[in-house]
Amino acid sequence: MNNTAVLLSSSPVAMARKGAMAAITQFLVAHNGSVLHADDHIDAGRELFLSRLEWDLDGFDIPVAEFEQQFKAVADAYRIKYHLALSEYRPRVAILVSSQDHCLADLLYRHSSGELRCDVVTVVGSHPAAGRLAEFYGVPFHLLSDPQNKRASEQQITHLLGQDVDLIVLARYMQILSPEVVGHYLLRLINIHHSFLPAFVGANPYHRAFERGVKLIGATSHYVTADLDEGPIIEQDIVRVSHRDTIEDMMRKGRDLGKVVLSRAVRWHLENRVLVYQNKTVVFA
Amino acid sequence: MNNTAVLLSSSPVAMARKGAMAAITQFLVAHNGSVLHADDHIDAGRELFLSRLEWDLDGFDIPVAEFEQQFKAVADAYRIKYHLALSEYRPRVAILVSSQDHCLADLLYRHSSGELRCDVVTVVGSHPAAGRLAEFYGVPFHLLSDPQNKRASEQQITHLLGQDVDLIVLARYMQILSPEVVGHYLLRLINIHHSFLPAFVGANPYHRAFERGVKLIGATSHYVTADLDEGPIIEQDIVRVSHRDTIEDMMRKGRDLGKVVLSRAVRWHLENRVLVYQNKTVVFA
Amino acid sequence: MNNTAVLLSSSPVAMARKGAMAAITQFLVAHNGSVLHADDHIDAGRELFLSRLEWDLDGFDIPVAEFEQQFKAVADAYRIKYHLALSEYRPRVAILVSSQDHCLADLLYRHSSGELRCDVVTVVGSHPAAGRLAEFYGVPFHLLSDPQNKRASEQQITHLLGQDVDLIVLARYMQILSPEVVGHYLLRLINIHHSFLPAFVGANPYHRAFERGVKLIGATSHYVTADLDEGPIIEQDIVRVSHRDTIEDMMRKGRDLGKVVLSRAVRWHLENRVLVYQNKTVVFA
Amino acid sequence: MNNTAVLLSSSPVAMARKGAMAAITQFLVAHNGSVLHADDHIDAGRELFLSRLEWDLDGFDIPVAEFEQQFKAVADAYRIKYHLALSEYRPRVAILVSSQDHCLADLLYRHSSGELRCDVVTVVGSHPAAGRLAEFYGVPFHLLSDPQNKRASEQQITHLLGQDVDLIVLARYMQILSPEVVGHYLLRLINIHHSFLPAFVGANPYHRAFERGVKLIGATSHYVTADLDEGPIIEQDIVRVSHRDTIEDMMRKGRDLGKVVLSRAVRWHLENRVLVYQNKTVVFA
Repeated sequence: MNNTAVLLSSSPVAMARKGAMAAITQFLVAHNGSVLHADDHIDAGRELFLSRLEWDLDGFDIPVAEFEQQFKAVADAYRIKYHLALSEYRPRVAILVSSQDHCLADLLYRHSSGELRCDVVTVVGSHPAAGRLAEFYGVPFHLLSDPQNKRASEQQITHLLGQDVDLIVLARYMQILSPEVVGHYLLRLINIHHSFLPAFVGANPYHRAFERGVKLIGATSHYVTADLDEGPIIEQDIVRVSHRDTIEDMMRKGRDLGKVVLSRAVRWHLENRVLVYQNKTVVFA
Repeated sequence: MNNTAVLLSSSPVAMARKGAMAAITQFLVAHNGSVLHADDHIDAGRELFLSRLEWDLDGFDIPVAEFEQQFKAVADAYRIKYHLALSEYRPRVAILVSSQDHCLADLLYRHSSGELRCDVVTVVGSHPAAGRLAEFYGVPFHLLSDPQNKRASEQQITHLLGQDVDLIVLARYMQILSPEVVGHYLLRLINIHHSFLPAFVGANPYHRAFERGVKLIGATSHYVTADLDEGPIIEQDIVRVSHRDTIEDMMRKGRDLGKVVLSRAVRWHLENRVLVYQNKTVVFA
Repeated sequence: MNNTAVLLSSSPVAMARKGAMAAITQFLVAHNGSVLHADDHIDAGRELFLSRLEWDLDGFDIPVAEFEQQFKAVADAYRIKYHLALSEYRPRVAILVSSQDHCLADLLYRHSSGELRCDVVTVVGSHPAAGRLAEFYGVPFHLLSDPQNKRASEQQITHLLGQDVDLIVLARYMQILSPEVVGHYLLRLINIHHSFLPAFVGANPYHRAFERGVKLIGATSHYVTADLDEGPIIEQDIVRVSHRDTIEDMMRKGRDLGKVVLSRAVRWHLENRVLVYQNKTVVFA
Repeated sequence: MNNTAVLLSSSPVAMARKGAMAAITQFLVAHNGSVLHADDHIDAGRELFLSRLEWDLDGFDIPVAEFEQQFKAVADAYRIKYHLALSEYRPRVAILVSSQDHCLADLLYRHSSGELRCDVVTVVGSHPAAGRLAEFYGVPFHLLSDPQNKRASEQQITHLLGQDVDLIVLARYMQILSPEVVGHYLLRLINIHHSFLPAFVGANPYHRAFERGVKLIGATSHYVTADLDEGPIIEQDIVRVSHRDTIEDMMRKGRDLGKVVLSRAVRWHLENRVLVYQNKTVVFA
């Protein structure tokens, strides 16, 4: 595993046409940074140029602390907004969960096997069963004192997590967070919804899918915003169902979908592959 | 290809438990009908037993014209509602189309290659281009005189088709039929909608999918009812999209989806594999 | 969950045409067994009629111990071979595993959440790490004393499992079993192979897939026979890859595939949905 | 549609690390070429840096005829091999076909609807039926005089096509071309094979898939090389089958797969998105 840096950036298309990408890569090469991956995208309608550059820090002659200052000339010249992330930094991740703990079990196993480059610092659950899983994987577990009391639960969560958390995964938390909490952790909250959004927003998607007689069911992982199930979508997938599938079968199939879809979204986020703008995502996967 | 009969039937679950299926197969065997395929389904919530039986008419000793009378005792005893269809009958199919003729081209090619067991008796289009395709495949074509005038168009269509049509395929007809026309041809109208319903009901689904930033787009084939895009779903499928896909790319991918999804639905309908009840379908595929 | 019986049966097509299915259902109904699910299939080339019938034992007036005797007349008349299984019986399952324990973790979680109707009686592993997982889920674990010694390992396995086991799942066991062991547990051994068989039979399928430049990778679950990777296939699935995927990425994607494909095969086997004949399976799913 | 240029290039990874990409983009920007799309890939094992750059020729101040000369300094400095393609050039495409004309019908329809940016200059077929389709779409058709005579057919084909053809699509041509013809048109021959290669290389893949009892069937589009079905894969896809599918059903499903897979490969080739190296492809899609 290399010691790398990732630059996620955006600039107006007009600037991109004047050579924003060339200027950035030129800057990196001039400082002995060898580019490992480059990917970009132009959103023509929104006139935005978006890119992800990953380079080897081995030999790169600018200390990270001075990057902003040294890069300023380029950023200003091309009106580049950017986010710099380092592979050596291990994001601090919290997981919120209910009694439905299949996504939790999946994420903790993946983490333990090295698939997710982060530290899982805490699991907060509304049900004690999740505590056993957390304990097995060596992660501190906190039980919500009064899960039915939304206000108290949110206070407990924000108190526990503070600001020192990079990502909060709602691994079937099954509660709608208040706008205050969402605002507090904006773009740091990833949820899994068990339908192919925008179909079946809200509660009981499988029951409604069953009633509607759909031939596919889905799962969607998205950043949480103040509008329920309306945040930027990171990943979706579906599985085929037929008249033979009961609601219980749909739920079972949906659990498999949810695990895969959520874990992809979390991994891409942790690897700094997701760029959000105007309620959409670019996933440089 | 055998000369076969298909019996699509439904009965209350309580009757099924008393042996409805055994009674039907016993009846067929007693009359020297050898069963080729049997499939059934219990909808526990609605307490319905649904089945499809296909048997070889070669040697079957009841003339079709007398089936109803001879089967009456069994049907009454088990409260069986049924529909009998014969493979030798070639359903009469009409296709309605706009300037978007990819589904038309696809259906006509499939028909010409023997994939669809029916007679395509007419194509009605709002645009002359479809006429060339129809002519090539030897199907009469009728151009709507005044496509913008919905009332006149519907009168022209019902006049052309009359009641002597078994199926009307809306192959991207792009007009909402009035409840009168829908009622006239109930369960004989199959539409293709270019989204995974119930997401993006109505107009411009790809534009809305693009705006929403979904990672999958879909297509849905369904029977038309008076409620727009709310009829019983026969088939759905999806294809993956990413930020790289423009709306034009989505449309291109959507055309491929639409052709496959619509043709599956039409084929299943023609092979008497679809049983509709309470706005859902059982597809005995 | 009902207390049910499942009859998996096969008979010559000629007998089926004379009413084998009707005779069986008639027999069940006559003894007050209400059929919950019926599914059948004719393999025209092999002239075989195959079926699965599931009925409610509540009210069924034949004690299971007497089923064979009472059903004999029907079975003889129509030359029916059959296997009777009871839902109340919980199959005894053993899992063999190597250091690659993702399938094990997945199966144990599914079992603990009630998805797999069986008793996992033992886990045998070539690596101690699997022991922690087994312990967490309350399943006895046995470490192979000398994993490099194939003969010794097989003796240890057969000694541990004896004949009192209904299914042995090779959850990435990574060793080829000798024909003796395979013969000992015929049709009771389910393996997961990480390719879409028959592509990439044998070792290192991902490396070979990478070299060949395929655009899809797969996983296959099959019964084990004496011919390596040639046994009857129960389930397969694939995932898309591109030039961006390294072998490590393929392995990660393959783990997700493997878990889902293996667990489906195991569940179908446990629910008596799989009928094997002439190296193929019918899965009544 | 813009008037654009595409540069497909490769260079040693060591050169890429010294800034090959930056140098190229710098060169383009310096000559007023605004980059529309950039994509690249490092094949670590083979130490190759591969990229695709597309830029707007509107305003680009180097005439195409002088590109090579002016770009030479950059190409030499970074040991860049490249291929330059212009969107205004319409590739000349020939299609070879047998009596199985579904891919031909599909390609001609797509071409007529503007999906494929090329001129279809000729269709050569072993069966007269394809001639009607070609005529309908206004493409010259040539019937092979003696389809059973492979040598004569190849002479007729090379005589008809000469060297003035950019791509030859084997749209179910069903004959193995001799190494001479393959060598003559190297990397200009795209074939569709009806299996997920490398499974079922050679003849009758569906029959063999049926015998093996696979649960998925596939299609593969690839460049033709002297080794049968061993050329660089461009695209693959699969569809699910079950025991209910006869060989005829597999063939029908396979036709749908084949059309989509082949048309994707052809489109990507025509849009200069495919880079071949060492029997693999990078598809910058």
